[in-house]
Amino acid sequence: MPTQTIHSLWQRYNDLLCTCDALHLSLDISRINFDDAFLDSIDFAPAFAAMEQLEAGVKVNADELDDHGEPGRMVGHYWLRNPDQAPDELVAMIRETIDDIKTFVAEDAKAFTDVLIVGIGGSALGPQLVADALGNLPGRPDQRRIHFLDNTDPDGIDRVFCKLKDHLDQTLVVVISKSGGTPETRNGMRETQKAFDDAGVDFAKHAVAVTGVDSALHQESQNWRAQFPMCDWVGGRTSVTSAVGLLPAALQGIDIDALLAGAAEMDVCTRQQTVKKNPAALLALMWYHEVKVKRRPNMVILPYKDRLLLFSRYLQQLIMESLGKEFNTDKTETVHEGISVYGNKGSTDQHAYVQQLRDGVHDFFATFIVAQKDRAGDSIAVDKNDATSGDYLHGFWQGTRQALYESGRGSVTITIDDVTPRSLGGLIALYERAVGFYATLIDVNAYHQPGVEAGKKAAGAVLALQTDILAAIDAGVTPDPATLAEHLSQPDEIETIHHVLAHLKANGRI
Amino acid sequence: MPTQTIHSLWQRYNDLLCTCDALHLSLDISRINFDDAFLDSIDFAPAFAAMEQLEAGVKVNADELDDHGEPGRMVGHYWLRNPDQAPDELVAMIRETIDDIKTFVAEDAKAFTDVLIVGIGGSALGPQLVADALGNLPGRPDQRRIHFLDNTDPDGIDRVFCKLKDHLDQTLVVVISKSGGTPETRNGMRETQKAFDDAGVDFAKHAVAVTGVDSALHQESQNWRAQFPMCDWVGGRTSVTSAVGLLPAALQGIDIDALLAGAAEMDVCTRQQTVKKNPAALLALMWYHEVKVKRRPNMVILPYKDRLLLFSRYLQQLIMESLGKEFNTDKTETVHEGISVYGNKGSTDQHAYVQQLRDGVHDFFATFIVAQKDRAGDSIAVDKNDATSGDYLHGFWQGTRQALYESGRGSVTITIDDVTPRSLGGLIALYERAVGFYATLIDVNAYHQPGVEAGKKAAGAVLALQTDILAAIDAGVTPDPATLAEHLSQPDEIETIHHVLAHLKANGRI
Repeated sequence: MPTQTIHSLWQRYNDLLCTCDALHLSLDISRINFDDAFLDSIDFAPAFAAMEQLEAGVKVNADELDDHGEPGRMVGHYWLRNPDQAPDELVAMIRETIDDIKTFVAEDAKAFTDVLIVGIGGSALGPQLVADALGNLPGRPDQRRIHFLDNTDPDGIDRVFCKLKDHLDQTLVVVISKSGGTPETRNGMRETQKAFDDAGVDFAKHAVAVTGVDSALHQESQNWRAQFPMCDWVGGRTSVTSAVGLLPAALQGIDIDALLAGAAEMDVCTRQQTVKKNPAALLALMWYHEVKVKRRPNMVILPYKDRLLLFSRYLQQLIMESLGKEFNTDKTETVHEGISVYGNKGSTDQHAYVQQLRDGVHDFFATFIVAQKDRAGDSIAVDKNDATSGDYLHGFWQGTRQALYESGRGSVTITIDDVTPRSLGGLIALYERAVGFYATLIDVNAYHQPGVEAGKKAAGAVLALQTDILAAIDAGVTPDPATLAEHLSQPDEIETIHHVLAHLKANGRI
Repeated sequence: MPTQTIHSLWQRYNDLLCTCDALHLSLDISRINFDDAFLDSIDFAPAFAAMEQLEAGVKVNADELDDHGEPGRMVGHYWLRNPDQAPDELVAMIRETIDDIKTFVAEDAKAFTDVLIVGIGGSALGPQLVADALGNLPGRPDQRRIHFLDNTDPDGIDRVFCKLKDHLDQTLVVVISKSGGTPETRNGMRETQKAFDDAGVDFAKHAVAVTGVDSALHQESQNWRAQFPMCDWVGGRTSVTSAVGLLPAALQGIDIDALLAGAAEMDVCTRQQTVKKNPAALLALMWYHEVKVKRRPNMVILPYKDRLLLFSRYLQQLIMESLGKEFNTDKTETVHEGISVYGNKGSTDQHAYVQQLRDGVHDFFATFIVAQKDRAGDSIAVDKNDATSGDYLHGFWQGTRQALYESGRGSVTITIDDVTPRSLGGLIALYERAVGFYATLIDVNAYHQPGVEAGKKAAGAVLALQTDILAAIDAGVTPDPATLAEHLSQPDEIETIHHVLAHLKANGRI
């Protein structure tokens, strides 16, 4: 239970409030119930040192190969908004990519009214967040409508093309895949090519690739309208300030210079090596307090702003893929780390699950994100006391924060003036840095994702088995799990075969 | 770690598979690693008995008042799709409401091209799920476009009206609030009235209320186009088969008879008192095994179908608000129960956080939802082995299930033929019944939400304080937290005042 009195709470709020002045962003950690000694009890120097190494271009991700096939990768997403700090050989490329994007949008993309992004994971979540948070400004329509194919669900693909089918000739397709080998993206691309062929529109003249040097997609897109680079030193989950995020945003008419500037400002702010002045350090310490000290491994993200609805989904990837690890950094210990992230938006979520947050299992801490500006124009009074809709939104944030605090549930609050390219860039950079710091605190590699391979490999085996099953059925073998398992000498795969058969039957394929 | 061999797994799959034949729905619990004795070790009779009481109209929710102000409420969402089982005095009303909805849509709503739903929580999540899961069928456009105001965010409201502003004269507004006192909904309604006034369109002729007898909204909507009832015996989180869900669905052109029939079929299936034949009982037992026996209180919902993206958000409310409780049923013990629900869709989420699921903290169990039918039309081959996009989706489900199983992570899989009104009705009813059963197993009241009040009350205090602050400033008091706290004799509210002032300033109000 909370121990602070009201007066010491106000003192605590003032003592602990951390601001990034350039962005008008503040972080309030006063409602996490850590004691006075906690902040000083954690040695943060290793986290700052690790970050310095990363920013200096050391190959901090030892487990993956670089673009030259050499072991070890640099991790350089901070250079994307501050090319001066990048290794010499990368500076010109970073700048040129930004210039190329602007030129492409201003000159080459004029004829397009719609943009279809084909990508998944890190190649979709960032662009989706940016599109929803910064697009559709009241009174200022987007320069182009934006659509996404972010899965390999045939019906989901059909739904997107139902919207687009009458204006494919005005649609630009942006295919985003570092390797070009991501099956969902490859499938989305093939389905898109089919839709263009059926409509008699030349796909290559409407297609742009964002991909790695010498990837399969790079080869395939040689005669497309344009190509933009993805680099080995930018991970998918931190790629939103690379061409991955910038090209879609620019096509939508979003100010990408402001997005980059906001991220750069936050980078400056979070490079400060005084913990109490560094919002990313404080955020990482609050995670540490709640998750490691208090054993509350769920992070509930509650932005009180509709535009930030997708921020929790973006953070699920950034945080869970970075921190959800089996081993410590040098693989000498099994650690099974991780923080589970969920949340949608306030005050809507109050009507969904604040019941559990206040009364139920205390396995979480909350993060409120508050945007002070209500709307572009003036507001009407909605009650007899002349309160506005925005006053209620504000009141619900304060009320929920207080109700949670009273039942011993901790929260941090991040406040921004408004959701703008600049502030969103700042929020993204804040969490990127906090994840990096926290990974050092708990000693895991934040920059690889070895656990993803097993599922891909198992899926590949299922598809290979399907090929064999179809061939066997063609050759006259009875489509029955036991018979096929024996015929294919795959007795251990009888259940897999059963499910493959059920799926094929349901789709009239056998 | 898993203990079964492949062969016993296949045997286990066949032994345990539970089907609801009428719906072609199956539940596979074989990949939850419970031992042979577990199912029989839990006495399920009390859960069946409690459900019988509930369906017989006993006032199982003792903590709330009924429509007559008497203590105790019946809980009757099952009657909505099977009026014959309702108490005599309700039968005609349930039938008439369904008929009234159909008549209204067929006759009175003809002129409308767009529908704006104003509601929050239980009055939005169900309609949103139904709209997204069942609307926008390729080749069959919705009868009316559907939009939602589900929050009190002014900018969010403006975004919706940007889309609607040119055809408000063809827009039907459906305001959904049991009490009429939900501020977010009241605010959305006021903002909507303003937009109609500004456009010179008569709001009352375009407005429909779904509300409780004698509510404030019922009074206000006397001269509106229509009124539909909400009953005290239907909780918000189980209201989707009442007028709350049926009216929006019918307006969109969705077959509500099929939705109701699917729910009714599942109700029949989950009334069976043989645990192994009852998918809701088995589901509740799996939750019990994972959450209570194994202490893994996170439920990850992974539908491998874009149309079911919102199902996890719907379940967040249904499950977390029902189960996240401080006390046991008779309030003799503090229990702090709950299950945290999150997830979006597969295979997309594999690229976001399956890394953590496979390698990281083992505090969850997964629920896969698989729809066998890929799409309405035929599929192209997307690779050299003639596999389709749907084959990949299927392969990723099997691969992820297998990869999780190999690292000791359990999952259940629910399989349906396709996402249809009928199967969605079945899924909704399955989870409603599972929540009820589980609540009995852990001895909590699934039908109240006492923890929500504290936040509302605190928010009300903030708004009342704002009124006093504005009055004081009008009277010449310096707009400074310390001065105002003293002036208003509210020394304990200095931080609240600080935040109110910051919000007012940011919006040019002081």
